[in-house]
Amino acid sequence: MKDIQNSPALVPMPIDRVGVKGLTLPIVVSDKENGSQHSVAEVDLTVDLPAHWRGSHMSRFVEALENWQEELSYQSMKKLLKDVKTRLDAKVAHIEFRFIYFLQKVSPATRAENLMGYNCRLLGEMDAGDKPKFLLEIKVPVMTVCPCSKAISDEGAHSQRADLRIAVRMCKFVWLEEFIEIAESAGSSPVYPLLKREDEKFVTEAAFAKPAFVEDVVRNVGHALLNHPGVSWFRVEVESHESIHAHNAYACIEYDKEAEGHV
Amino acid sequence: MKDIQNSPALVPMPIDRVGVKGLTLPIVVSDKENGSQHSVAEVDLTVDLPAHWRGSHMSRFVEALENWQEELSYQSMKKLLKDVKTRLDAKVAHIEFRFIYFLQKVSPATRAENLMGYNCRLLGEMDAGDKPKFLLEIKVPVMTVCPCSKAISDEGAHSQRADLRIAVRMCKFVWLEEFIEIAESAGSSPVYPLLKREDEKFVTEAAFAKPAFVEDVVRNVGHALLNHPGVSWFRVEVESHESIHAHNAYACIEYDKEAEGHV
Amino acid sequence: MKDIQNSPALVPMPIDRVGVKGLTLPIVVSDKENGSQHSVAEVDLTVDLPAHWRGSHMSRFVEALENWQEELSYQSMKKLLKDVKTRLDAKVAHIEFRFIYFLQKVSPATRAENLMGYNCRLLGEMDAGDKPKFLLEIKVPVMTVCPCSKAISDEGAHSQRADLRIAVRMCKFVWLEEFIEIAESAGSSPVYPLLKREDEKFVTEAAFAKPAFVEDVVRNVGHALLNHPGVSWFRVEVESHESIHAHNAYACIEYDKEAEGHV
Amino acid sequence: MKDIQNSPALVPMPIDRVGVKGLTLPIVVSDKENGSQHSVAEVDLTVDLPAHWRGSHMSRFVEALENWQEELSYQSMKKLLKDVKTRLDAKVAHIEFRFIYFLQKVSPATRAENLMGYNCRLLGEMDAGDKPKFLLEIKVPVMTVCPCSKAISDEGAHSQRADLRIAVRMCKFVWLEEFIEIAESAGSSPVYPLLKREDEKFVTEAAFAKPAFVEDVVRNVGHALLNHPGVSWFRVEVESHESIHAHNAYACIEYDKEAEGHV
Repeated sequence: MKDIQNSPALVPMPIDRVGVKGLTLPIVVSDKENGSQHSVAEVDLTVDLPAHWRGSHMSRFVEALENWQEELSYQSMKKLLKDVKTRLDAKVAHIEFRFIYFLQKVSPATRAENLMGYNCRLLGEMDAGDKPKFLLEIKVPVMTVCPCSKAISDEGAHSQRADLRIAVRMCKFVWLEEFIEIAESAGSSPVYPLLKREDEKFVTEAAFAKPAFVEDVVRNVGHALLNHPGVSWFRVEVESHESIHAHNAYACIEYDKEAEGHV
Repeated sequence: MKDIQNSPALVPMPIDRVGVKGLTLPIVVSDKENGSQHSVAEVDLTVDLPAHWRGSHMSRFVEALENWQEELSYQSMKKLLKDVKTRLDAKVAHIEFRFIYFLQKVSPATRAENLMGYNCRLLGEMDAGDKPKFLLEIKVPVMTVCPCSKAISDEGAHSQRADLRIAVRMCKFVWLEEFIEIAESAGSSPVYPLLKREDEKFVTEAAFAKPAFVEDVVRNVGHALLNHPGVSWFRVEVESHESIHAHNAYACIEYDKEAEGHV
Repeated sequence: MKDIQNSPALVPMPIDRVGVKGLTLPIVVSDKENGSQHSVAEVDLTVDLPAHWRGSHMSRFVEALENWQEELSYQSMKKLLKDVKTRLDAKVAHIEFRFIYFLQKVSPATRAENLMGYNCRLLGEMDAGDKPKFLLEIKVPVMTVCPCSKAISDEGAHSQRADLRIAVRMCKFVWLEEFIEIAESAGSSPVYPLLKREDEKFVTEAAFAKPAFVEDVVRNVGHALLNHPGVSWFRVEVESHESIHAHNAYACIEYDKEAEGHV
Repeated sequence: MKDIQNSPALVPMPIDRVGVKGLTLPIVVSDKENGSQHSVAEVDLTVDLPAHWRGSHMSRFVEALENWQEELSYQSMKKLLKDVKTRLDAKVAHIEFRFIYFLQKVSPATRAENLMGYNCRLLGEMDAGDKPKFLLEIKVPVMTVCPCSKAISDEGAHSQRADLRIAVRMCKFVWLEEFIEIAESAGSSPVYPLLKREDEKFVTEAAFAKPAFVEDVVRNVGHALLNHPGVSWFRVEVESHESIHAHNAYACIEYDKEAEGHV
């Protein structure tokens, strides 16, 4: 049977990334509290393709993922990256997992417990030297109370849900839980899945005692990550679903500690 | 050239709706203030198909839309429904337009003006008797201040953006603007595209003076539509992006005034 | 502490549905082959609210879900519906789970195995008489080869991925796997997560030997469900991402066997 | 009235981007064929914020956009960037417009005409030296016929719709139409809004005579842009909705002609 993919390229130009997007599979993720947890992931896998080959063998990506079947961790992702490189005979491999990570949250007054899900992206890259690089991104919803609205109004202040996205490259292992903690202390208040009336009173008062612009939130996280010894690069984004507008407020800080000589 | 669509159906079963989805085109919409406005629409067109025909001629839907080129109104949509029925030799036709409708909003204190866009859906249906029926749906973002949070907290109250969806069937012509007005007076405050500091103070204080649960908002709209002489059926939905949670609060009332003998 | 929700409604109008939307949680789902499987769900829970009460107690929905912690099945969902009704003191409860269900697929020629995920929605409703009603919806992607294009062209025919949605009400228990099987035999070919070259040859030839319009696909499923003793109501929708257009082709059949006296 | 935004930052850290996201407005776009066309845009506007200021004045972005009211072009966007910088007292401004651009398409056999919409993004950036930089991205759907499937199958080949995204930085003015033309000749066939039977035969046969992997498509575009004198940087992405899978095939080439000394 002909192998068209192995025939010479019609236009001999190297391709940066070629592969598959949007595979879904159940996964087990390493978890600080309980050892591991079940989730579902959407996965993209790509490699580079040199100028002379016409096509990549797409089914090999799916086989690599099928054959992998490990708990998601930096170690297991390293294995998968290496396996994809080998199967595809490639110099560089990129893999992205998108999944929800669940944490038990405790309400601040009545100590009621409930799970909350955080959208995560884990990107791994392995180059010619087989050295893996990782980028972890977590979306953490927080509450923001507007400092301006509070200062100028006789009563109240507008508040809203804001999506805080933290993307990091690490120079040593850091639990995902640590970044969620940094995020949740950076706004006016964390958000919770379950709040009884006593909790709602607590959250409202705590949030009003700590009003924060998107600028404040992004700097609070930036400051914490700048001083975090495990983080070598970060990007923090806040998008606040302003309750007085139909549009959003946005702020972003990106910082490369290595490039800036900040270590 | 063979006309496979006209061949007998392999499984002779009537089909309720067959057609095309997701056509995009620039449109002109009738507008109360300025006569008309430009927008962009996404359009679906379908008809019924009797048991004995194998297929519909999909290109005829596109031709009908291309040939139509009128200002979007109930009258022009009636023409399009009739034309689709004729071209497709059908008993029933359904058409849906999804578009953004723009209104000049005036800020409450400084009277600053700015356009705000509202997502709309206009559905038309024409049956064997050529009588058209319409359903109009508008999404209006509003602000809600939580009455419970306000009552139990020493200071503040959580607020958030809420999406209010009004769907109506009318027994006489009513401007879209009227439904937007009903929606915007049903929450704690309307939202605005442009607010200067004086406006923000006004909105914050006005909203805090009028806290509203999703239940209150849906009933306020329900009450107004129940008593509106132009409305024969309605469905009101509110989905509030709670600032203290990652999930939403939701309420819905659907009411058929004709079926309930309420006229 | 004040209970504002229990105060009299400002506008005394009954509300059809009030509750929470978009909770996420890990779930275990009953599975024909392996007994059970892990997945992740997004959940909505609502109840009716009588005219005289101002508000629903939203945290009770979250507590009901937290307390439930069972394997997802009709039996366990019945318990959850009953519990929600009790906690909220409601006459009617509605619950919707949205999740991905995984099945091991075997490629047609090389018998290579791989998981494929199907998007599902399970809706449960319990009314005043405590009798539950369920609606199950599954999205199954299939391949369609255009019969018209094949008949009129000297070579080839355009094909594409089509999303087939089957929604059913059942009068007795039917495995989800059965509906997936009905769906996958209704198009020109099933789609697969993993296909080696021999499989790709098989799928291409099989699909070209069985061209199908969206009208054919919807009727094939309709015919199977009409004759399925476990199904009392169904709605079948096909949306085909036409490879020769930027828009989609669509067909839909909805049929109530009880109302039509077809039992 | 207090101006909290002007107070000193609590954490004195420079912010890369702060502003508003998701404003919608009707726009007029420069158009090669007809001079101009009406569309609708979603707009983001951001600036940098120095370490010592606490907050940005978000309403000024909205005022700048309201005050602008020009036909969208590189010249008018330059004015808007400059105005945003001035109003916000910023060193750097970023603006992004997302809109649908419509072109009259002519079917290949019967010469039937119809509008087709292309999703576009225009990003503008102006730095301290007031020099603007632009990035234009266009999404063009094309048809791909699989060369492998065609070569190994006795009959047929699977085809599908693929989304081709071209992002470019230009060193001189190039009409958007040119990039659409490059994109539409890079796949197995362009897609069309309206095709009569004669056209469908033409498109099917033409596409089967020119099978193309995502690797071929991305290289065809890459080759054309590499040799285009108006383009200084480009990124080409193809995502093909494989009709035999539920996942997509993907390829990407990014190339900086200036950095690579290719001019």
